[in-house]
Amino acid sequence: MTMKLFGSAKKGGIKMIKAGVIGATGYAGTELVRLLTLHPDVKVTSLVSHSFVGKKISDIYPSLKKINDSVCEELNIEKIAKENDVVFTSLPHGTSEKVISELYKYGVKIIDLSGDFRYDDVSVYEKWYGVKHENPELLKKSVYGLPELHKNKIKNASLVGNPGCYTTCAILPLVPFLVNKIINHDNIIIDAKSGVSGAGRSLTLGTHFVECTENLNAYKIGTHRHTSEIEQELSIAADNQIMVSFTPHLVPVKRGIISTIYANLENKYSNSQLLDICKDYYKDEYFVKIYDGGQLPETKHIVGSNFIGIGLNVDERLNRVVIVSAIDNLIKGASGQAIQNMNVMFELDEKTGLNFPGIYI
Amino acid sequence: MTMKLFGSAKKGGIKMIKAGVIGATGYAGTELVRLLTLHPDVKVTSLVSHSFVGKKISDIYPSLKKINDSVCEELNIEKIAKENDVVFTSLPHGTSEKVISELYKYGVKIIDLSGDFRYDDVSVYEKWYGVKHENPELLKKSVYGLPELHKNKIKNASLVGNPGCYTTCAILPLVPFLVNKIINHDNIIIDAKSGVSGAGRSLTLGTHFVECTENLNAYKIGTHRHTSEIEQELSIAADNQIMVSFTPHLVPVKRGIISTIYANLENKYSNSQLLDICKDYYKDEYFVKIYDGGQLPETKHIVGSNFIGIGLNVDERLNRVVIVSAIDNLIKGASGQAIQNMNVMFELDEKTGLNFPGIYI
Amino acid sequence: MTMKLFGSAKKGGIKMIKAGVIGATGYAGTELVRLLTLHPDVKVTSLVSHSFVGKKISDIYPSLKKINDSVCEELNIEKIAKENDVVFTSLPHGTSEKVISELYKYGVKIIDLSGDFRYDDVSVYEKWYGVKHENPELLKKSVYGLPELHKNKIKNASLVGNPGCYTTCAILPLVPFLVNKIINHDNIIIDAKSGVSGAGRSLTLGTHFVECTENLNAYKIGTHRHTSEIEQELSIAADNQIMVSFTPHLVPVKRGIISTIYANLENKYSNSQLLDICKDYYKDEYFVKIYDGGQLPETKHIVGSNFIGIGLNVDERLNRVVIVSAIDNLIKGASGQAIQNMNVMFELDEKTGLNFPGIYI
Amino acid sequence: MTMKLFGSAKKGGIKMIKAGVIGATGYAGTELVRLLTLHPDVKVTSLVSHSFVGKKISDIYPSLKKINDSVCEELNIEKIAKENDVVFTSLPHGTSEKVISELYKYGVKIIDLSGDFRYDDVSVYEKWYGVKHENPELLKKSVYGLPELHKNKIKNASLVGNPGCYTTCAILPLVPFLVNKIINHDNIIIDAKSGVSGAGRSLTLGTHFVECTENLNAYKIGTHRHTSEIEQELSIAADNQIMVSFTPHLVPVKRGIISTIYANLENKYSNSQLLDICKDYYKDEYFVKIYDGGQLPETKHIVGSNFIGIGLNVDERLNRVVIVSAIDNLIKGASGQAIQNMNVMFELDEKTGLNFPGIYI
Repeated sequence: MTMKLFGSAKKGGIKMIKAGVIGATGYAGTELVRLLTLHPDVKVTSLVSHSFVGKKISDIYPSLKKINDSVCEELNIEKIAKENDVVFTSLPHGTSEKVISELYKYGVKIIDLSGDFRYDDVSVYEKWYGVKHENPELLKKSVYGLPELHKNKIKNASLVGNPGCYTTCAILPLVPFLVNKIINHDNIIIDAKSGVSGAGRSLTLGTHFVECTENLNAYKIGTHRHTSEIEQELSIAADNQIMVSFTPHLVPVKRGIISTIYANLENKYSNSQLLDICKDYYKDEYFVKIYDGGQLPETKHIVGSNFIGIGLNVDERLNRVVIVSAIDNLIKGASGQAIQNMNVMFELDEKTGLNFPGIYI
Repeated sequence: MTMKLFGSAKKGGIKMIKAGVIGATGYAGTELVRLLTLHPDVKVTSLVSHSFVGKKISDIYPSLKKINDSVCEELNIEKIAKENDVVFTSLPHGTSEKVISELYKYGVKIIDLSGDFRYDDVSVYEKWYGVKHENPELLKKSVYGLPELHKNKIKNASLVGNPGCYTTCAILPLVPFLVNKIINHDNIIIDAKSGVSGAGRSLTLGTHFVECTENLNAYKIGTHRHTSEIEQELSIAADNQIMVSFTPHLVPVKRGIISTIYANLENKYSNSQLLDICKDYYKDEYFVKIYDGGQLPETKHIVGSNFIGIGLNVDERLNRVVIVSAIDNLIKGASGQAIQNMNVMFELDEKTGLNFPGIYI
Repeated sequence: MTMKLFGSAKKGGIKMIKAGVIGATGYAGTELVRLLTLHPDVKVTSLVSHSFVGKKISDIYPSLKKINDSVCEELNIEKIAKENDVVFTSLPHGTSEKVISELYKYGVKIIDLSGDFRYDDVSVYEKWYGVKHENPELLKKSVYGLPELHKNKIKNASLVGNPGCYTTCAILPLVPFLVNKIINHDNIIIDAKSGVSGAGRSLTLGTHFVECTENLNAYKIGTHRHTSEIEQELSIAADNQIMVSFTPHLVPVKRGIISTIYANLENKYSNSQLLDICKDYYKDEYFVKIYDGGQLPETKHIVGSNFIGIGLNVDERLNRVVIVSAIDNLIKGASGQAIQNMNVMFELDEKTGLNFPGIYI
Repeated sequence: MTMKLFGSAKKGGIKMIKAGVIGATGYAGTELVRLLTLHPDVKVTSLVSHSFVGKKISDIYPSLKKINDSVCEELNIEKIAKENDVVFTSLPHGTSEKVISELYKYGVKIIDLSGDFRYDDVSVYEKWYGVKHENPELLKKSVYGLPELHKNKIKNASLVGNPGCYTTCAILPLVPFLVNKIINHDNIIIDAKSGVSGAGRSLTLGTHFVECTENLNAYKIGTHRHTSEIEQELSIAADNQIMVSFTPHLVPVKRGIISTIYANLENKYSNSQLLDICKDYYKDEYFVKIYDGGQLPETKHIVGSNFIGIGLNVDERLNRVVIVSAIDNLIKGASGQAIQNMNVMFELDEKTGLNFPGIYI
């Protein structure tokens, strides 16, 4: 029913990757469907949506008409596991691990967009999510799916915990400076501003247009779950327990996160020295764009793409670096990164189906 | 310098279409660059920009970094004509015809995004644009580039006048009803609402964020130039001189046009009868989406794509049909349609490089 | 509990008008509370809110902190009727008439913001609202509260049906031309664009920020209830049964309606002739601003105020006038007009408490 | 020509304050005109605008039609000084001090909205503004016009340097904790997000609607001039040289600033202890709203008003407080605060003409 767009990169007898999406009609799920449909080596088979069984995805999101007119199905774990090479799960945490604990038995590869399989230490998950993890053994087998940091593990993973949106935007710009012992471990502050699609499609007063447009607000100060995920990865990079201030804000744009990150420098560095460290660290990472020449990333530079933009400025008066990073929360922060993980898991070029620019205008 | 994204649709020894863009750094020009860069059968050679000679397009639009890092050039007509199979011109009217009158001599195919080559009758152009046309002979050779209406002419054209944004959105929904003598020729009213990118990148008070956001306004009532282009095409369809009320409005969105069109019916018709007429008329036209089942197009359904959405509702009390149509003003209303024209002119599948959905979220 | 802001216009022993608001926490209700609190001759006594009993209005709308910290009450009809000189009801239709039929018995003046008391003919209400009116006798006693048209009746009314937002913006610009027999009765078309606050505070997918921002859509073509209210008043003005096309659109702004109105002229008229007719008709009406000199109203000119802006342009080619009008849907379209009605009913200067400009920026 | 709105608070023979505005047509200037026109004890006499001499302010800002239709004048220093009790200057820095050095000679009270008269130390001004101050003697006589901190000095001032928008929003929430030695002097980080009106009415690419909406960006990291103003006032409060990281961001709203402020605590404190310190410090300050009960200020709570909202959350893991503050950049951050200063200078109740709520919806 779906059609392929730009011709396959796979020639001859090589078969397409069959992919299913569970939770296909939320914002991240639908972006997955859009991007998988465009992917030259993927055949999207099953779209599962609890709320819209029997309805075409293109009736729910009419932008997909003529592009993907598949009908949403009820969840049938055996069927989706057997019919696919990979299954993406875009479900609420807790629900996700229940479904995945069943799916996993069939040997299908799984990429999970919830928080359920992102943690090395089950107690951190349980503390920050406030629920017991029912599948700690499975958690141990999962790999944290930030390809710029864990590509080798992802290659061999059968279950990937796809990172959160805020976390991707906070971890990637900090890791090079922790690994290289450039910044002090205390007083790392991450002030993040997100577009509203990060809050999902569920109706809430705070995301009602009239309440949300022309408004700016901070929320969950010091308590947002992504804090724990950021700290996990920064601690690995620093080889030391790192704790950060992380403050999310809601701003009236559809998409995009910008993080402004403050860290004290261990020594004196110029902008170009720090940029070089960053460039060197990510020299093989296509989706990382380092900004030099005094430029800084803005969300319009990356929205609609799988890139992360990173720039910075050293405040010499304070011997402090201020790093600015930007991503599209639904792509590099969710569905695009999930596909990047799939590409790695299936030994495709990481860029396949993701090598498009943002839309800017 | 640019890289190809999804693999070419052209196999073996078939050569890529070499394309140049004159006026590459305006909004329509930059969309052309983005979409041509993604096009599997095109090699973008020259980007000409008067204002940014020597600067990378990806420094002007950082969304293009790593995707297209070409350097903008000064205009050299001979060079661009000889090096390319097709040249797109995205220049102010008047300027455009001067450049094209030179380009044309080299035999390169030309697709012009200005108003200079859209008219069958030079006097209509001169009246509505208030300037003398310096190349009326060339105007006679040009073809009006609305592929859904003039595909056969476009196939053989060497100079295409690409339609305006408002006009595309107004003409396509009306033509089936004029051709089939469904609607009265008097009292056709087109009330159009456009996103701000339609006004281009030039700085004006009316497009200053603070003046423009949270504001709604009508402009150029009864005097907008696109009126004449709409009337030309409707008159052809009706085989009669048609005059319309056309009122453009500026609304605070980046992209998208919605047209609400009022026309009196010659006889009684149901919604489904009118939809069937429309579906039948466009049955071979991929980029036309007809909405049935009581649905209407919204701009989020088509923004980011080359589709036009058309829906309608008959007001039986008044025996009047209200048609709603929506396009992305920069894609179906400019750069996407230009590429569609190129596909037709080069005998590619019309969908090549354009078969992506809107982004909705 | 509330405090008076600019000093009372009433001197000596004259007592303040005591006012209650039923439905104080919806958008129109809250605007009423804000404006009544600022009104120099009003003491706001009771705020009734079904959903927020026991909660301060300034906890629901923190903008009111220190300005009005009253606690919302359960509805007690006898109490609110006896304690007040006037009660404003901002409730869903149907609910409103039930409450008012009780309130009315106590002799308190009532200004109703629902559709329940706007009609001269109960059958029109019943047809367009699809419900039976339970209090047709009371409906007969009510007055349609458009002060620019019905000031004398409003003066003596004890029950006023405050007009709808779209209707105010459509009726006022058309009446002078119908009364003076300038425009044809057929083919009157009203294309209206509204900010999202017009849809109220209830959560719906269509008013979810992500679905609503960067989007444009038409809705309820030919079926919106305000059509009937517009037709009632235009028919009175024309002394003839008038039917109109009315199409509402949702646009991503908080506040403001712009109406673009098309009507065929019975004779030839210039812009200034038509503007003079309009100026003359409204020469005593403070809240009507007629735009001349080629200017047109934009919503930013009137948002935040009780004014209506009216401008126009004659299309001589078609002998048709295009009128543009703009109001703040929550003020002139709801709460401000309600206070204007109150001023008339209590023989205050109509401008009292309403004589502030829009905020523009 | 202008009319008074709510009746004067001044009774009997007490004369109105005559006020002139130089630079009346910028955004801050126009807000001054709007608020002064509404002020019960002010008569707005002269509006000076270099760009719009001879034009009605209500033709430039049609929201003022019927409210203030004064004609803009050329600058005549002697005339404006002699005809007024107070003159507000809303001019670019540098230009402002030139005008004021002349105005001052006439003994008229002056409230300056530029940066020219905000500094205790001329060398700080010269370093951050990169220009020489031509009137250092006059600078010494000026008073920094933050009424919550310097009311007694303002009372007797004849020249007030009205604070910047970012500075007001950053200084007020920090002072109580510095005065009371609650927070560490190092590692104070102020991450501020501003609406676009803060950038004024001049046309720039960054404030073009298409470039600005749906975008988020940081700018002038570590180099914004307001840093120096913030540090001056915090150093006074701390009785120690304070240096801060200050990062401004542009977000697509018209008005409003939210500051997220990070500071390390000297000891352990609970939220309510810190809130009590803040409440106590500002117990007599009407325009400061302290948020308790786990609430935080959002810009929609204060936009349209002269209030500042302050809330906070202690992160016990890090022994760090995160303070959130919000103001309307054009009112408490500019014109409203200027009028508050005027009220203090003329011994009116500080609230006069400013006691209105924000508009929220």
